[in-house]
Amino acid sequence: MKLYEQLANSIEQSIQEGVLCPGDKLPSIRQTSVSREISPSTVFQAYYLLEARGLISARERSGYFVSGQQSKTILSLPDPVVQVSEKVTQVDISELVFEVLESIKQKNVIPLGSAFPSPLLFPLNNLARTMASSVQIMDPWSSIDNLSTGDANLRRQIALRYMIDGLHVPADEIIITNGALEALNLCLAAVTRPGDTVLIESPTFYAALQSIERIGLNAIEIPSHPREGIDLDAMEMAIELHKPKVCWLMTNFQNPLGCLLSDEKKKALVALITKYKLPLIEDDVYGELYFGDKRPTPAKAYDTEGLIMHCSSFSKCLAPGYRVGWVATNRYVKDIERLKLTTALSTSTPVQAALAKYLQKGGYDRHLRSLRHTLLINQIKFTEAIARYFPEETRLTVPQGGYFLWLKLPDGVNALEVHKTAIESGISIAPGPIFSAKKEFTGYIRLNYGHIWDDRIEASLSTLGAVVRNLVPE
Amino acid sequence: MKLYEQLANSIEQSIQEGVLCPGDKLPSIRQTSVSREISPSTVFQAYYLLEARGLISARERSGYFVSGQQSKTILSLPDPVVQVSEKVTQVDISELVFEVLESIKQKNVIPLGSAFPSPLLFPLNNLARTMASSVQIMDPWSSIDNLSTGDANLRRQIALRYMIDGLHVPADEIIITNGALEALNLCLAAVTRPGDTVLIESPTFYAALQSIERIGLNAIEIPSHPREGIDLDAMEMAIELHKPKVCWLMTNFQNPLGCLLSDEKKKALVALITKYKLPLIEDDVYGELYFGDKRPTPAKAYDTEGLIMHCSSFSKCLAPGYRVGWVATNRYVKDIERLKLTTALSTSTPVQAALAKYLQKGGYDRHLRSLRHTLLINQIKFTEAIARYFPEETRLTVPQGGYFLWLKLPDGVNALEVHKTAIESGISIAPGPIFSAKKEFTGYIRLNYGHIWDDRIEASLSTLGAVVRNLVPE
Repeated sequence: MKLYEQLANSIEQSIQEGVLCPGDKLPSIRQTSVSREISPSTVFQAYYLLEARGLISARERSGYFVSGQQSKTILSLPDPVVQVSEKVTQVDISELVFEVLESIKQKNVIPLGSAFPSPLLFPLNNLARTMASSVQIMDPWSSIDNLSTGDANLRRQIALRYMIDGLHVPADEIIITNGALEALNLCLAAVTRPGDTVLIESPTFYAALQSIERIGLNAIEIPSHPREGIDLDAMEMAIELHKPKVCWLMTNFQNPLGCLLSDEKKKALVALITKYKLPLIEDDVYGELYFGDKRPTPAKAYDTEGLIMHCSSFSKCLAPGYRVGWVATNRYVKDIERLKLTTALSTSTPVQAALAKYLQKGGYDRHLRSLRHTLLINQIKFTEAIARYFPEETRLTVPQGGYFLWLKLPDGVNALEVHKTAIESGISIAPGPIFSAKKEFTGYIRLNYGHIWDDRIEASLSTLGAVVRNLVPE
Repeated sequence: MKLYEQLANSIEQSIQEGVLCPGDKLPSIRQTSVSREISPSTVFQAYYLLEARGLISARERSGYFVSGQQSKTILSLPDPVVQVSEKVTQVDISELVFEVLESIKQKNVIPLGSAFPSPLLFPLNNLARTMASSVQIMDPWSSIDNLSTGDANLRRQIALRYMIDGLHVPADEIIITNGALEALNLCLAAVTRPGDTVLIESPTFYAALQSIERIGLNAIEIPSHPREGIDLDAMEMAIELHKPKVCWLMTNFQNPLGCLLSDEKKKALVALITKYKLPLIEDDVYGELYFGDKRPTPAKAYDTEGLIMHCSSFSKCLAPGYRVGWVATNRYVKDIERLKLTTALSTSTPVQAALAKYLQKGGYDRHLRSLRHTLLINQIKFTEAIARYFPEETRLTVPQGGYFLWLKLPDGVNALEVHKTAIESGISIAPGPIFSAKKEFTGYIRLNYGHIWDDRIEASLSTLGAVVRNLVPE
């Protein structure tokens, strides 16, 4: 056992024994380094491991705290059974997904099933002011220049953010899209033909399944661990067996699991796709919503062959309705640009100009710090409320970022029934089967904690707990 | 021969004989009605026919004038030879189109090959002010409500415009898209599968060809008459022979021909598709840019079976870079909404809200009147300049709306060579072969007259005329 694991286990024991209680502040990395006579980086690794185990959380500028969910009732999810299907799956999930999305779209429903955080968490007034001033000084010709690839200033601002995060991405390898979803779809179309196979995670974001179904592709699903992410051995077996044309993965705070690939695992992932010359669509729309010290690195940082198409957007971090996303890609930039040109020509120019100006002003990072803090606090409040209101057997993930919790319901409780009953009580949830090509995960639900916490939200979790309890078989 | 045809022929003779000269004002409809003792509507029909023949033009609020191009050198295009191919065409045009589009994208090129009018013709300042005020009062929840179908106010405003034009289109049968191009693509995807056949016009808008190629469809091309549009007999033969799954036509001021289907022909077209239960994608992005008395009716007005998907946008009339279009469809609304949801989720909300407010304020019709007037004047100036600077054998269409001229070059002159030489002189044109699945029309070019007329534009036509002249074989 490595030194940092020993330290982590020793702290975990203190938590289990009640020496450290939920909300307690841990000694700082420097203090522990001095007191235990080990290097600060070893302490950091230990704290990181404890975070990954869901036992502690980092709070912005104030250090590490014992998480609130260490009650006896809420424990982390069991490890999944990893196996590779012998057959690819012809995806036929859209009808179920649409049915669920349609029902949760109703007004006045508490949107715990929503894919978006509450718009009240975003600096919409500030953005609106920026837009009001930028649109009035726009060059008329900008409305028809740069049509397919996007606003030159915005592409430069995005390239700058990559640079700050340690990635070299030239602005002309960035294509602005109508949200990340269009970027992901263009990438998929660029490297597949109907009948091809796509390697995805299980569970996975339902829009990936819908895109695969729409284009007429097959899916091979690789089980993902709720904390550690995709199983790379299983992935390699599946590559050998099914010769997929592309993989579509979420490396940071995966939807719905919330899992985060470590840097080591990302390096191994890149080595694997490089070995097989397999393109990878890296869906990284939650990467900015981290609770740790720094933005988790995209796998693209380790890609020397140009195989990774890195997709992201401002929809989950800044401006949901603006529908501005992008893809950063080297090898496929020309193909994707052309697909963009023939499917929707370009992304709306005034919103691109406004976002470019907002980024240039420098308010984005301040907003993100505050958003991350709110989400982390919400995560603690949600997990505490779930511990209070849900049946004991409920299990959940404690992601290190994003705004989703993935819950395993007590045995015998069906997620689709929870969905139906909850909707009748005015609460939406996202039932597990919509995240799986085989409609598995019938015992799981996804909850969105990206809301302004108040009595109404707490009451909805109490109601939801009762709904689940009533569905537990005798 | 009908009375109005007799009258038209008599006036045409006066023009040929030089009694009426280019620029002369015709007697008003009322004067002629009194002097010839026939009904005003007969006179109107005669004038309309003369307009269709390119001999006279209507000018906003000032009556009819003899067109400028009645010089001996410029005559209208010959009627096309109508025949139906025995084979469908596997489309492989994109490479050529991209090559041409790429080369004409250069800065400082006079954009006679562009698909967009000059942005200087649009009320961008007024729009910007509207947007500045509307974005600051947007409801935060609007950023995630109505995501796939679009802003409710904008859909209501569009429905209102349909109503004023005499069509009953409920707001919930309108889906807002990222420009008309996305609408057209969603329609195509909704009713076809790879390998299916699509019935199109020849020549046709190159983006239709690119979409057909991208989805892996086949095309059957029906010749269109430069003034009267698609040949319906040929169309019926092709339907019987090739069983297309859908037709994609432009009914008003077709790109590139500029032809306009008469109301009678539209009724016959609708009867034909109804007989075969064949869905029709009606691309009507130029309909608002008419030079006559009223907006030409969309074929959808005569559709009782819900077979027509009517697509349009604000990109050619009001706000090119905003990328807001729509499709109005009854039978396919659910399918298209779902396709929209899985390809790009929704259209940018702030720009939708701004356009809704702009339409509500009532400045749109005033702007359109002024835009139509400018385009008509430009058409006259362009045709006069072409008569002056191009070789005698040049022929062209004189459309009753839009901003394109379709020129037949003298025998032996290749449009792709004109394109290459013109680009070297800093002028872009759109060569004929990009408008044809079979890369026909090598002797034709399309010119965009939607510009602010000035010495630079006139000089470019003079240069272009010399380019063409130099390419005429000895």
